[in-house]
Amino acid sequence: MIIDFIADYYKNVEKYPVRSQVEPGYLQKVLPESAPNNPESMETILQDVQQHIVPGITHCGSIAGFLGEMLSSGFNIVGFNWISSPAATELENIVMDWLGQMIKLPKSFLFSGNGGGVIQGTTCEAILCTLTAARDRVLNKIGRENISKLVLLRLSESMSRISADVEAGLIPLFLCATIGTTAITAVDPLKPLCDVAKQFGIWVHVDAAYAGSACIFPEFRHFIDGVEGADSFSLNAHKWFFATLDCCCLWATNPEYLKNKATESKPVVDYKDWQITLSRSFRSLKLWFVIRNYGMENLRHFLRSHVNMARLFERLVSGDKRFEVVFPCHFAVVCFRVSPLPVLMDKLKTKYENCLLSEEEQINEFNRELLESINASGKAYMTNVVLGGIYAIRFATGATLTEERHVVVAWTVVLITIKIKLKIFLSLVL
Amino acid sequence: MIIDFIADYYKNVEKYPVRSQVEPGYLQKVLPESAPNNPESMETILQDVQQHIVPGITHCGSIAGFLGEMLSSGFNIVGFNWISSPAATELENIVMDWLGQMIKLPKSFLFSGNGGGVIQGTTCEAILCTLTAARDRVLNKIGRENISKLVLLRLSESMSRISADVEAGLIPLFLCATIGTTAITAVDPLKPLCDVAKQFGIWVHVDAAYAGSACIFPEFRHFIDGVEGADSFSLNAHKWFFATLDCCCLWATNPEYLKNKATESKPVVDYKDWQITLSRSFRSLKLWFVIRNYGMENLRHFLRSHVNMARLFERLVSGDKRFEVVFPCHFAVVCFRVSPLPVLMDKLKTKYENCLLSEEEQINEFNRELLESINASGKAYMTNVVLGGIYAIRFATGATLTEERHVVVAWTVVLITIKIKLKIFLSLVL
Repeated sequence: MIIDFIADYYKNVEKYPVRSQVEPGYLQKVLPESAPNNPESMETILQDVQQHIVPGITHCGSIAGFLGEMLSSGFNIVGFNWISSPAATELENIVMDWLGQMIKLPKSFLFSGNGGGVIQGTTCEAILCTLTAARDRVLNKIGRENISKLVLLRLSESMSRISADVEAGLIPLFLCATIGTTAITAVDPLKPLCDVAKQFGIWVHVDAAYAGSACIFPEFRHFIDGVEGADSFSLNAHKWFFATLDCCCLWATNPEYLKNKATESKPVVDYKDWQITLSRSFRSLKLWFVIRNYGMENLRHFLRSHVNMARLFERLVSGDKRFEVVFPCHFAVVCFRVSPLPVLMDKLKTKYENCLLSEEEQINEFNRELLESINASGKAYMTNVVLGGIYAIRFATGATLTEERHVVVAWTVVLITIKIKLKIFLSLVL
Repeated sequence: MIIDFIADYYKNVEKYPVRSQVEPGYLQKVLPESAPNNPESMETILQDVQQHIVPGITHCGSIAGFLGEMLSSGFNIVGFNWISSPAATELENIVMDWLGQMIKLPKSFLFSGNGGGVIQGTTCEAILCTLTAARDRVLNKIGRENISKLVLLRLSESMSRISADVEAGLIPLFLCATIGTTAITAVDPLKPLCDVAKQFGIWVHVDAAYAGSACIFPEFRHFIDGVEGADSFSLNAHKWFFATLDCCCLWATNPEYLKNKATESKPVVDYKDWQITLSRSFRSLKLWFVIRNYGMENLRHFLRSHVNMARLFERLVSGDKRFEVVFPCHFAVVCFRVSPLPVLMDKLKTKYENCLLSEEEQINEFNRELLESINASGKAYMTNVVLGGIYAIRFATGATLTEERHVVVAWTVVLITIKIKLKIFLSLVL
């Protein structure tokens, strides 16, 4: 019954508004105030799911990996060390080496090269773990009493700040470089960062949560050139590699900081010592299913099609003089906005004349309103970014089920919305 | 195909050895060294699961909650704030209030009473979150520069130590009381602990990971009497409440330490601020399915049957003079061992004469060997605990599919094993 329900859900997923349109507290109004005393049938529960839950979720649409996830839920194993379920540990070792090879990580990050990989839940956990490992590496050297001297580095200021920190008696500890930022998929220059970090013994973590997957194409691999100078590297297979949440793949070159003494004396990995939590589920199963059921060639094909769709959207934006692409599009996210053309800015000045907004704020406000109208249509869901004072609309093509026709529809939604918007706008200011 | 596979797995789960019998590295030998280039069929992959994965997992056998988990994987929503999928946040609010009512948590822990609940992955995450909240509460008062004065409390020493710490200028920060310890399901006395903690402004977390579920029976609720004096409380619905991993239910009375300013101004909860990670899955769905599809009466019935089966096993142990129950059995875990009877100890003295073992060590070693033989049978899986110098064997009856006949089989396995063991043993020492 549930399988049929899910199959129908995917078949109809295009009919639902992409982003949920409900109001806060909608669910409380329709569900009982306390748990039922007597069993309810699966039919009744599924009716409620269809009627009350489905309207309240954002439809991401991802099938691949779901089957592996389902099997892993079915087994419901609780792994923490090797002995508790050897297959879970060993498959994770193997699949992490496979994936590491696919994106051409240096051998020092793989089990086959004295490194190793682990599947965390999310990047937050990966950062917390590597940060802890980095802290312990330094404290082992300088003594725990010096913990208050440790400083983290923010990239924008790091290069100039390191020397100043060191002169002030502080100890730079950890540097996180990002390959494909959330906001605009920007890429930090790995090689020079690692070179500087090395001089000061700073742990470098490479957060390639989103864009790491793209390194399975030879032509994208250059984005992580220099990774051999880093200590750890993570990518989220649930972001752009067809796995379901949660599947954050983390590799490290220094697993001795992640291993405890018990595991050093044994030929197995006890993953409980590689993460925050003791219990863990069988996450490698879904990744194994994805890699095998697609195969490397198909994975490359799908990712490339996402990049191509982003390029298509970028061309559509660039071809319309009213719009502009705001930040360079490296992967499958396009950041664009309505351009501050003089003819528009003249009108905006009149519209916002009582609002004390600068010209920059006026164009930003106009784009914000445009995004709201686009999302209110329920036909497309876009997000936003504000960077360097510029408000841009983000359009991503990396979802599993996205096809070229969806990109064309999304652009049409933008065109219709701006048309309505300009009409209302003109009637307002005229 | 996968649903059929899982159904067959459950049908046959009794045929598999409970604990995996494989050797380290077994999987590496049978899987390819790198990812396949071309897609493989689901049939091929499932053949490998049956042949290579199933023999390497511990069979926990839990169906309930799996269907909800499956649906949640199917939706694959990535929740972090309310807007990203309102149903996920609101259902979690509702179900956590339901469950809180079921175990009669004070109203101050519920959303309906200005508290609130959140589903974390595991207890480790719940502790890390509450500890962070406790730290921030104190630091807001005393200033961040005093962080090095903070101390945690270990229960065994806490009562006498608090005053000494305070006199030494230290600040006791956090006390974790346990209801149903992992080792022997012991219960800390909540009320007196909370009374003392209150005087010193110490955050009390109640870790009822395993035994909290039992509070749905009126006759077990007294174990958490005094919880109204605590700051936070957690129980793992994946441990003894029919949900699949991960489902750690955490309630707190002071959600202002968990909320950020953005959420205070809105009538919704942004769960990303209640946990370590930003992204989160739709965990409340499985808990909702469990509660509705069982109903409260049935849940009580099943948990009571687990307790009754533990009592049955306890009676079987107590009725055999060669064995003894070592620690009191409150819930569904029995800790027992072969008794150090004089006639046995005489023989053990001869057996271990070259080992320099004390009498205590000799009986412990004998019980350790017994447990190994029991588990090697593949017919039952028990664990062990060493407490107060005593090595005991732990037998748990709280798995979803456990029936009385399994308890009888397990006891028969113990009897057969001890018989063989004593025979071998007698032939050795004679």
